[in-house]
Amino acid sequence: MVATPAYTVVLNWLEEQLRHGKIRVGDKLPAERALAEHFSISRASVREAIRILDAMGLARSATGSGPQAGATVISEPSAALGWALRMHIATRALPVKDVVTTRLLLETQAAWDAASGENDDHTDRDDILSHARDLLDRMDDPEISNDEFHALDAQFHLLLTSLAGNVVLETIMVSLREATIGYVQETVATLEDWPSIRATLQTQHRDIFTAVTDRDGKLATRLLRDHITWFYSLVPRAEK
Amino acid sequence: MVATPAYTVVLNWLEEQLRHGKIRVGDKLPAERALAEHFSISRASVREAIRILDAMGLARSATGSGPQAGATVISEPSAALGWALRMHIATRALPVKDVVTTRLLLETQAAWDAASGENDDHTDRDDILSHARDLLDRMDDPEISNDEFHALDAQFHLLLTSLAGNVVLETIMVSLREATIGYVQETVATLEDWPSIRATLQTQHRDIFTAVTDRDGKLATRLLRDHITWFYSLVPRAEK
Repeated sequence: MVATPAYTVVLNWLEEQLRHGKIRVGDKLPAERALAEHFSISRASVREAIRILDAMGLARSATGSGPQAGATVISEPSAALGWALRMHIATRALPVKDVVTTRLLLETQAAWDAASGENDDHTDRDDILSHARDLLDRMDDPEISNDEFHALDAQFHLLLTSLAGNVVLETIMVSLREATIGYVQETVATLEDWPSIRATLQTQHRDIFTAVTDRDGKLATRLLRDHITWFYSLVPRAEK
Repeated sequence: MVATPAYTVVLNWLEEQLRHGKIRVGDKLPAERALAEHFSISRASVREAIRILDAMGLARSATGSGPQAGATVISEPSAALGWALRMHIATRALPVKDVVTTRLLLETQAAWDAASGENDDHTDRDDILSHARDLLDRMDDPEISNDEFHALDAQFHLLLTSLAGNVVLETIMVSLREATIGYVQETVATLEDWPSIRATLQTQHRDIFTAVTDRDGKLATRLLRDHITWFYSLVPRAEK
């Protein structure tokens, strides 16, 4: 028998409060004790609800007492949804091949929007591009570790995606990226010629960057597609 | 101060177990008591971990004792991720406009794949199409409620999407759909001429269905784009 757990009243209540603007991002949630009394449920059930909100990127809990204690409403969907997608991929319900195809679709659209400048109310375009260029310069340093390279690589792709100005698309992209970190790291570990592959990736990154900067949407889209498809082609067959 | 809560060891352990195929969908998780002892954490912390897995569509808990008790590993990403996206939309971090644009992108690609039959290892294509036709017939019944109409409408779109054969794309589509149920219902509530709009939606559904059945990807994509864009144009400006 599957019963509806007590904590769901807290989650449903919060959704209502958010929808009607009565609670906003940055607000504190009422104390555990107050919520428990209000809904006539145990404090353990309230804590379960808050743990779920933490895991979903909807609350951040602080320990201790005093004004800093308790949970604050946040909205950081990417890491939370990325973790959830990664878990579902681990169960084999979501194949890596389908993640890559979906990423390709979303990221090429983002590159098109970013390059063609259809979203030119994006006043910080120059700042974003200059930040992206810095990342590429840091990735050229042969001294940085593979982990650092991957982290900078992810940030570079994310910055270009953010230029498209669609928060949902960006969130899903970050989640998919987060979901495939394991696959990227495992792939790299099996590659004999990683230094030359890393150099090729950088050449591709620079060409994509130039196309976006030059507002050549068609070229940016094609280069990005080639870049992702090429890296995926290196994945050992067993992983696909 | 943000501390790492005790329950995270259980989540990290499960991810490792899933990745290495030591635990699979359908398996029972060890009992709360056993996990608490193994990781030297409280049973309350183990329960928090399992609540999070429940909320993420990764576990289903049964109450009571005996062989049916305890949590079973499942993988039902759609409802869980849909709920999470809906909450983030409620915080206003994810605008409805961006959800609609992203849905448009993913669903037109799915319609293209479904119609062009690039995924013809999909042996149950005929069954899916025949099921979709049944849904349309039921939606023609003027006696059904608006809620039933919306539910059947959602199922129809999902069935066509499933023909594309990309599980990740399908999961995200269902999640986005789940995330905008509130917006659809609120829109409909404000429309004076709902009966005629409902008739128009049905005409559009039938045309899309015919294009997919006839394997006309170009037409299916265009009709679907018009269908979604038209409905979104009816949304009161305040909601966008």
